[in-house]
Amino acid sequence: MIKKEKTRRAPTESDVAKLAGVSQSAVSRAFTPGASVAKATREKILHAAQSIGYQPNLLARSLATRRSNIIALAIGNLENPFYAMVVKELSEQLAETGRHILLFTTPKGDEADPALERALSYQVDALVMAASMASIELTMQCQKAGVPIVQINRETKLPGISTVWGENQRAGELVAAFLYKAGHKKYAFVAGTKNSSISQMRQNGFETYLKSAGIKKIKTVYGDYTFEAASIAARSLLSAKNPPDAIFCASDYMAFAVIDVATREFGLNVPKDISVIGVDNVPEAGHSAYDLTTFSQPAGSLVEEAINIIDKMIADPGRRAIRCEVAGELIVRGSAKEPKDGFINNVDNKIWLE
Amino acid sequence: MIKKEKTRRAPTESDVAKLAGVSQSAVSRAFTPGASVAKATREKILHAAQSIGYQPNLLARSLATRRSNIIALAIGNLENPFYAMVVKELSEQLAETGRHILLFTTPKGDEADPALERALSYQVDALVMAASMASIELTMQCQKAGVPIVQINRETKLPGISTVWGENQRAGELVAAFLYKAGHKKYAFVAGTKNSSISQMRQNGFETYLKSAGIKKIKTVYGDYTFEAASIAARSLLSAKNPPDAIFCASDYMAFAVIDVATREFGLNVPKDISVIGVDNVPEAGHSAYDLTTFSQPAGSLVEEAINIIDKMIADPGRRAIRCEVAGELIVRGSAKEPKDGFINNVDNKIWLE
Repeated sequence: MIKKEKTRRAPTESDVAKLAGVSQSAVSRAFTPGASVAKATREKILHAAQSIGYQPNLLARSLATRRSNIIALAIGNLENPFYAMVVKELSEQLAETGRHILLFTTPKGDEADPALERALSYQVDALVMAASMASIELTMQCQKAGVPIVQINRETKLPGISTVWGENQRAGELVAAFLYKAGHKKYAFVAGTKNSSISQMRQNGFETYLKSAGIKKIKTVYGDYTFEAASIAARSLLSAKNPPDAIFCASDYMAFAVIDVATREFGLNVPKDISVIGVDNVPEAGHSAYDLTTFSQPAGSLVEEAINIIDKMIADPGRRAIRCEVAGELIVRGSAKEPKDGFINNVDNKIWLE
Repeated sequence: MIKKEKTRRAPTESDVAKLAGVSQSAVSRAFTPGASVAKATREKILHAAQSIGYQPNLLARSLATRRSNIIALAIGNLENPFYAMVVKELSEQLAETGRHILLFTTPKGDEADPALERALSYQVDALVMAASMASIELTMQCQKAGVPIVQINRETKLPGISTVWGENQRAGELVAAFLYKAGHKKYAFVAGTKNSSISQMRQNGFETYLKSAGIKKIKTVYGDYTFEAASIAARSLLSAKNPPDAIFCASDYMAFAVIDVATREFGLNVPKDISVIGVDNVPEAGHSAYDLTTFSQPAGSLVEEAINIIDKMIADPGRRAIRCEVAGELIVRGSAKEPKDGFINNVDNKIWLE
């Protein structure tokens, strides 16, 4: 049996024109901000439009203006609450200027190209990448098409890609100083993925400080930015012969896994037996189940800078890529032993300044 | 000083045609799946397109076909990891058929209309709403425009809106039975927002069971689906003269807040002193910091049904709204005292069947 498909045609500009008894171009002008049309005519048109459910077609308009007001967001790790915050902030901040996110979730670690080539086909105004990578081919394609790329929280060697990130080197140095001055002797670092430049910068800051303080052995394991891999990494650290008493994790989300394993599986007390510090300051870090000391990466500020860059690149397509670092703070909660001094209190948090 | 704006025009179909030495319509056919064009010609065209960064314009195509392959998603509570899962699942499942999410984050509890009227202007194929509400006016507008609306995890009195939800009544009944058979005497319910029909259904199931078992007093407080309000609600419950020893929360996210307050502020042991059960089964519920007993709402299945409904509504615009319930399970972990029997083990979890 062949089912007869009902068709319900969406109302058009011409339908509105007929109903309102005006020309089609009057309808078009009535829906164009700033265009000239008599007040009475405009009201008649808006009334007719509403009565038949007509919507001005922004797709058609973006074909004419070559601006869609759509920003593609490629995101690779929505399980991590930090990236859920990035999505929320980007959506809310773009909405203030009438722009919206076209969302592409991409496999973690893998290149996001196949999905993102489609994004280009939608004539997006810009491409934001978070926990997601583009190939050199895709980057070149974007540049040819005049679509700026901004990465959040990721480094790249590719030319022409703008980047916004937190203070990665300083995060590592400050956490190392905090733990060292609290009297720790045995250190470990739970890294993200092996190819994560962000994780490498944090590790570099951490090791540089500790080595200059005379600490020679700093064990590194990979938590791959997931809860599961970080749990496995924590087990391997804590079941070793000479386990660490201070663990720095390249993300809060991995620090939660380390705390879970340390307390539930190894019966350790945090911070009496072991100190754990993360990076990000996701909302869960403030919940008392974890009460995590962490170096903050303010998602709101990162997104604000990313949008600034997009606007600059759109206004001036010839300009070079922009790199922007957003300052963070070491927020002191209950998951790590503390040095004697160096603290201040700001409005929300206790901060350590070294 | 007026800055001279550089313009870099995106390459067009006609640019590709010139470069490849073919007609514009050949270029158009080369980018249309199934259209007839000689293999050698197609390759020449694709090569020319790539060399100048041309992308077929899906916006233009969607004007012709009246299908944009864009689904608008209005979401009101991305802090809650359940909704982060919904976004991820919807994005991944839609991508399998080459469709993508245009994201609208909406104020929690408020009507999402102003943002969503813009969604209609983008000629979206459908509108999915999660933790977000539409007015009757917007609903009518969508119906006139032939855009189906599917709500995830929310009830509505409005006609023509399809809904996908979990087993809300059964969740309440089963949790009540579990707690009652474990020997509890003093019950409380931490509701979502006052106007949440989902929360009301869970409460109704919970109270119906307990009342029929002879329990008369069941205290209800509102956690508004946020961590902060649920913490305040928990404080008021636990500082009362005769505090509950069994608390059912309308979401896992609120249950985490209740556990934090009970253990850290009131020094209670979960589950020895107090049992806490949630709804959703977000990944964090399985982390050992919370180890939460909870009634599951499988985000993947909810999204799958939502997409099924969208496809049916698009194929047959005249059909009536569809309501679909997705089964869940009471997943037993460590946050509540247990009845003597009624358990089975499936692949991943220990389940209680009553």
